[in-house]
Amino acid sequence: MLACQAVVEGDAVVIVPPPEAIERRLTTDHVAPDAVVPDGYDPAVSQTVRRVVLDLEPPSMDDQTDDWARLVTALRREAGVDAVEATLDQIRRLGTDLRSADWSVAVTFDTAGVGSSRLIRVEPAAAVGPLWGLAIDVGTTTVTVWLVDLGTGTVEAQGGEYNRQISRGEDVISRIIYAGKGDGGTELRDLALETINGLVTGLCGRAGIEAEQIVKATVSGNSTMMHLLLGIPASSIRLEPFITQINHPPLLRGAEVGIAMDPAGTVDVLPGVASYVGADIPAGVLSSGVRFSEKITLFIDIGTNGEIVLGSSGWLVTCACSAGPAFEGSGVVHGMRADRGAIEEVWIDGGTHEPSYRVIGNVAPRGICGSGLISLISEMFLTGILDKRGQIDRSLTTSRVRRGEHGDEYIVVRAGENGADHDLAVTRVDIDNLLRAKAAIYAGFEVLGDRVGIPLDTVERVLIGGSFGKYINVEKAVGIGLLPDMPWERFEFLGNTSIRGAYLALLDREARSTVSDIAGAMTYIELSADNSFYEAFTAALFLPHTDLSRFPSVAATMT
Amino acid sequence: MLACQAVVEGDAVVIVPPPEAIERRLTTDHVAPDAVVPDGYDPAVSQTVRRVVLDLEPPSMDDQTDDWARLVTALRREAGVDAVEATLDQIRRLGTDLRSADWSVAVTFDTAGVGSSRLIRVEPAAAVGPLWGLAIDVGTTTVTVWLVDLGTGTVEAQGGEYNRQISRGEDVISRIIYAGKGDGGTELRDLALETINGLVTGLCGRAGIEAEQIVKATVSGNSTMMHLLLGIPASSIRLEPFITQINHPPLLRGAEVGIAMDPAGTVDVLPGVASYVGADIPAGVLSSGVRFSEKITLFIDIGTNGEIVLGSSGWLVTCACSAGPAFEGSGVVHGMRADRGAIEEVWIDGGTHEPSYRVIGNVAPRGICGSGLISLISEMFLTGILDKRGQIDRSLTTSRVRRGEHGDEYIVVRAGENGADHDLAVTRVDIDNLLRAKAAIYAGFEVLGDRVGIPLDTVERVLIGGSFGKYINVEKAVGIGLLPDMPWERFEFLGNTSIRGAYLALLDREARSTVSDIAGAMTYIELSADNSFYEAFTAALFLPHTDLSRFPSVAATMT
Repeated sequence: MLACQAVVEGDAVVIVPPPEAIERRLTTDHVAPDAVVPDGYDPAVSQTVRRVVLDLEPPSMDDQTDDWARLVTALRREAGVDAVEATLDQIRRLGTDLRSADWSVAVTFDTAGVGSSRLIRVEPAAAVGPLWGLAIDVGTTTVTVWLVDLGTGTVEAQGGEYNRQISRGEDVISRIIYAGKGDGGTELRDLALETINGLVTGLCGRAGIEAEQIVKATVSGNSTMMHLLLGIPASSIRLEPFITQINHPPLLRGAEVGIAMDPAGTVDVLPGVASYVGADIPAGVLSSGVRFSEKITLFIDIGTNGEIVLGSSGWLVTCACSAGPAFEGSGVVHGMRADRGAIEEVWIDGGTHEPSYRVIGNVAPRGICGSGLISLISEMFLTGILDKRGQIDRSLTTSRVRRGEHGDEYIVVRAGENGADHDLAVTRVDIDNLLRAKAAIYAGFEVLGDRVGIPLDTVERVLIGGSFGKYINVEKAVGIGLLPDMPWERFEFLGNTSIRGAYLALLDREARSTVSDIAGAMTYIELSADNSFYEAFTAALFLPHTDLSRFPSVAATMT
Repeated sequence: MLACQAVVEGDAVVIVPPPEAIERRLTTDHVAPDAVVPDGYDPAVSQTVRRVVLDLEPPSMDDQTDDWARLVTALRREAGVDAVEATLDQIRRLGTDLRSADWSVAVTFDTAGVGSSRLIRVEPAAAVGPLWGLAIDVGTTTVTVWLVDLGTGTVEAQGGEYNRQISRGEDVISRIIYAGKGDGGTELRDLALETINGLVTGLCGRAGIEAEQIVKATVSGNSTMMHLLLGIPASSIRLEPFITQINHPPLLRGAEVGIAMDPAGTVDVLPGVASYVGADIPAGVLSSGVRFSEKITLFIDIGTNGEIVLGSSGWLVTCACSAGPAFEGSGVVHGMRADRGAIEEVWIDGGTHEPSYRVIGNVAPRGICGSGLISLISEMFLTGILDKRGQIDRSLTTSRVRRGEHGDEYIVVRAGENGADHDLAVTRVDIDNLLRAKAAIYAGFEVLGDRVGIPLDTVERVLIGGSFGKYINVEKAVGIGLLPDMPWERFEFLGNTSIRGAYLALLDREARSTVSDIAGAMTYIELSADNSFYEAFTAALFLPHTDLSRFPSVAATMT
């Protein structure tokens, strides 16, 4: 059951943790290996942001051309720029900028727009440093920012942080509801900006630059996050027929969006496809190379929603499965995000039914995160604690199985064990939530494959994006029927494909154009209007599936 | 001497009248006959602002197109609009606007831009009234606004008001200086906007509409006024080499400029030519028809500066003469603007040297306005009170001539006469100021004519624009050598040609394009760098001129 559909049957206290209290397990201090500069990156060819040095003839009684025309004429002559667009603020500053630079200026502009270039900066030619850009991924849970030297393509620094909106709701649905009440929309927008700008400030500090030196930001994220960031009402996303206000936002400027950067710098919000297939999916398809391969590929981004793309270079179909927050450790009694203290992997002894586990940070266990739950359910099933319907076998002779206030449960950690201050158990309700989540995703695979006549076992590659994906144990994910059963070498874990797509689109006009092509080429299949989805979902509610022949490797383990 | 160049040699108290205290002689209550709808005005052909009614298919599970794409697609299909540009605020409102209109919307957009149209309004199709526009002329002294029904071209209401900036300086130079100090620029901008918006609110009240229904404003005025209105620093206009920051401002939106209108409505600031030949001159050349006639025409706009254009359909030369504020009644001891109580016409008896005069509003005389000064000087010269160098003949047996604290003077009104509460005299210093002003303008004519090899007496038409022009007595203006001596039928007084140009440019895309063509085609001659100007100026400092043969009609009167 989704939290938003829960009926409160008695007095309830809802505790919203302040974001400061969240412990972090995020990559904030290193350049991850996935920030690889594209081969042969040449800003002169690829980059839409350009900077030219102009030694302007100062005005004189013989040449009384106005400042703006003097600049535009020189840009046309020296840089072949046909039309330039400036804000009124830029025009207001122009005369001062030209004179204080003694008419020798470096002019930065962005050629990304249609029809005209956008003026960004006019500064003394003598004083210029590198041009900086940002790749930003606004996830429902995590916001990631890369600070990029646009001249070399190098990621100078990168950081991640929980989206501060979390304190106002764990998933997109609760955020949309929050945004629709009073000043909720403004509040969520401010929280997203605080998160982004906090990261930007930190990255700039590490790189020793000012945020005002950042001339472009390319932003990815799901449709709800993009709406909330831009202050666009998101309520239609939540309500049938599930419409976004805009999938392809226009180019904006830093000041309009509120990002800590040059106020005239370009903000390029990547295009989304549908309410639940946002910009992160075309960006992920781009960076994972699905579009550039003949291989039939299944691309999955699992979070609160599972977005799935099936395709190859010639075609792409996509859908979104409302998995619920179970994989993010939410909606589960002792669930938690993949923070310090989260159990992320579990092994159960087939004879004694005693568990062993690994805890993030090697500290006292505090809860169980998504990958830990997958591991746990898989082990419980394989050791006979769960039957194929997900019911706990109370007949087992182990004190780990008991009747709790939420029904039957299995105790993973007893209070006092390894410093735990209370019992950590998985309940029947938790298991049902997880089964629904994995069934929704598996049914999504199936419907997509059916639509295009591709049996799942002919899929040549399965690419798993999303930071969650990085920590999944494939064997166990297959074991519970979350991922299709196929040779492990076909699976590839890509981490955050969305930020990498934003990074590539920031660097390369061709890549940016490909993101739009991908978004436009994707055939979106709305599952909530699809009867075959419901059937596939129901069949997938079992462990690993009603039809065991689909999971031969699991069947082999069971015999 | 210009006020800005005066040296204060002792304690000085500068009294700045509050704008509320200024008495008004402005046309605020009637539609002047010059607001004539162009023949055959057809908004479907001429108007850049368009409105189309779209009955959009509401989104459904079968068509989950996002709101923005739904609108853009329909605009392309129904109105042939290739690209539409919207502000982030418009995108934020779009979903609500579409839904509250139940998907049947009237969409207003402006096709004036290059490459893409600008979205202005999305409103319920059922509720739309006329589309309204503004023609605005921001003069140094007077701001004029016409409220125009864009569907019919009719001027529904018009108003004029003193520019509230007057309290911060009478002329453009003193305003530029004021703008350059502290928050002076912001203050002047606010005052210009208060003036405009006060008028707009009044006009809307009379028309029974809301200012938000105004979708376009076309603005004319001199370069300093345009800079101050847009908050662009104007200091370079005042300092050699006299450069504007921008002559062709881009299309702006109501909210950016601050005009009381639809915040997304277009503000089109017409193009200027140079620091002292602003948008009002191309606008005046347009509305006076200079560009459409084979006749060699002299077009003059006399105010603080005299802007002069010589040309015909094939060519245009222009210059600006720094006349000083004498014609606006400033820089003259008993000078005043053409308000109630201003002497606007004087006659002097050749025998007794006793004056008679006409006072604006038929009230007690309070001062002498520009047209009154021209009339007075001409009469004084013709009756022998002044010699050709402008010196007062002290030998005359009249008590009207005396030595005052500013040197020799002629008393036009004695304290007590007709209710005057003090003597009103014209002094030697005043006369020198007026001679310099008229000499600058006449020398401008001469230099322009010399440059293109057109003797002044071959000029076929003299068109006089500016509200000041309306009250000049041609005979007397020729009498002092301000206007060239030619048959009176060649003179035509056009009143405010700038507002009419703005009005035509607001209505008609061809007219708007012609204004740009005119601005681009004008050859600007900088007089301050021109030796021949100085010679012509010196020769013109006499009454009516050193070379009396240029003024045969005046010579005839003198004999």
